[in-house]
Amino acid sequence: MNAVVFDREPVTITAYDWVPGFAQGLVRDLRLRWALEEAGLPYEVELVAQGTQTQAYNMSRQPFGQIPTLTAGPGTMFESGACVWRIAEASEALLPGDKAGRDQCLSWMFAALNTVEPPLSMMAMLFFFEREPQHFGIADAGAVATIRPGARNGAVLRLKQFADVLGKRQHLVADRFTVADLIMVAVLRIADSLDLLDESPDLRRYVSLHTARPAFRRALDGQLAPFRENAIKYETTG
Amino acid sequence: MNAVVFDREPVTITAYDWVPGFAQGLVRDLRLRWALEEAGLPYEVELVAQGTQTQAYNMSRQPFGQIPTLTAGPGTMFESGACVWRIAEASEALLPGDKAGRDQCLSWMFAALNTVEPPLSMMAMLFFFEREPQHFGIADAGAVATIRPGARNGAVLRLKQFADVLGKRQHLVADRFTVADLIMVAVLRIADSLDLLDESPDLRRYVSLHTARPAFRRALDGQLAPFRENAIKYETTG
Repeated sequence: MNAVVFDREPVTITAYDWVPGFAQGLVRDLRLRWALEEAGLPYEVELVAQGTQTQAYNMSRQPFGQIPTLTAGPGTMFESGACVWRIAEASEALLPGDKAGRDQCLSWMFAALNTVEPPLSMMAMLFFFEREPQHFGIADAGAVATIRPGARNGAVLRLKQFADVLGKRQHLVADRFTVADLIMVAVLRIADSLDLLDESPDLRRYVSLHTARPAFRRALDGQLAPFRENAIKYETTG
Repeated sequence: MNAVVFDREPVTITAYDWVPGFAQGLVRDLRLRWALEEAGLPYEVELVAQGTQTQAYNMSRQPFGQIPTLTAGPGTMFESGACVWRIAEASEALLPGDKAGRDQCLSWMFAALNTVEPPLSMMAMLFFFEREPQHFGIADAGAVATIRPGARNGAVLRLKQFADVLGKRQHLVADRFTVADLIMVAVLRIADSLDLLDESPDLRRYVSLHTARPAFRRALDGQLAPFRENAIKYETTG
């Protein structure tokens, strides 16, 4: 077992060669790409063919058959939160220099991933349930519509609490862009894809501000390019 | 804004003075208590009266009106994952000395909180929906039973993937107890409370092994003691 080291080439991340339209632009390698772009760390992308992610080779580096992974120098890590935190610690671009600011960034990272994101994941799961009920063992897709208000209320409450704290600010920590904004914006983009930001102008402004960053645009373009190239392999006609 | 510093007294965490029976032993201050007990760091507990957690004072230190928070020296943090990681970094009891082992612990911490826990949170939300449908704006509680197999399948898949990786091992990283085991066991206890470990003898063995640790028993006793003392204030008869 070796450690992730950023001062030796190459840095490699894993990403999918294609995902369905609803997931395009939301797959979690985007978080690593964005962090690496902000940090100015060059990286290569190893594409995992859609449908092969739970085969032995990928499972050997990612126990849940997911992407992304991060290989830097001799070491490999998994989980986008863990990878992004390690990237952040390697760069002044993503973390303040003072320990107090770093503590706040760490708190906000976990808040984004463990408090704001879970109710959004539930909303996303209900979307999948309605789309393919038989695949999930659900006898009546109509039940999803009955449950959705409860799930939506939970997500909206979390978003409102966050909007109240954010207010008119542009940044969460130290009046500058940090990894806390990066991860929170990445999570809020899921909320946006679920039409949950329509009543939150402050959150939409915050997301728009940071997704206009050149590093984000490069990261997004990087994720989407192979989807376009490989669409013909995966998309069925009619 | 000040930094969390562990070499100055006092360390203080927040916890509830009481929670309903189904949550007792599962509230997230347990994770901080356990980590602090393992690290041998003395701490005090500030009890937050049930029902007051979203009042201004608690919101000023915890943006979502949750517990726990961690105050160490002059600084305060929130989110159990962030707090536990900081405690772990302050103690050899919870992290291996080598960077590679620390990377693996960080990956597993996020895996526990952002990959294993979300499908369990969805199961827990369905439990609440069924219990109080009107509170959540759900017109027909019967819909919960229709959705549950889908949510259960998702949770069981994650648990099976984890069980496959764990196998007969006692520890996730470096053949010793680390913060990775602490957080994963804390998450698996939620699965157990949802009757999801019945078909996973390896996971149950792993949970039993680590919850027998004296530090865990002290942490659990510490969480439960005020619930007993304050039951008379909150529990309604008949």
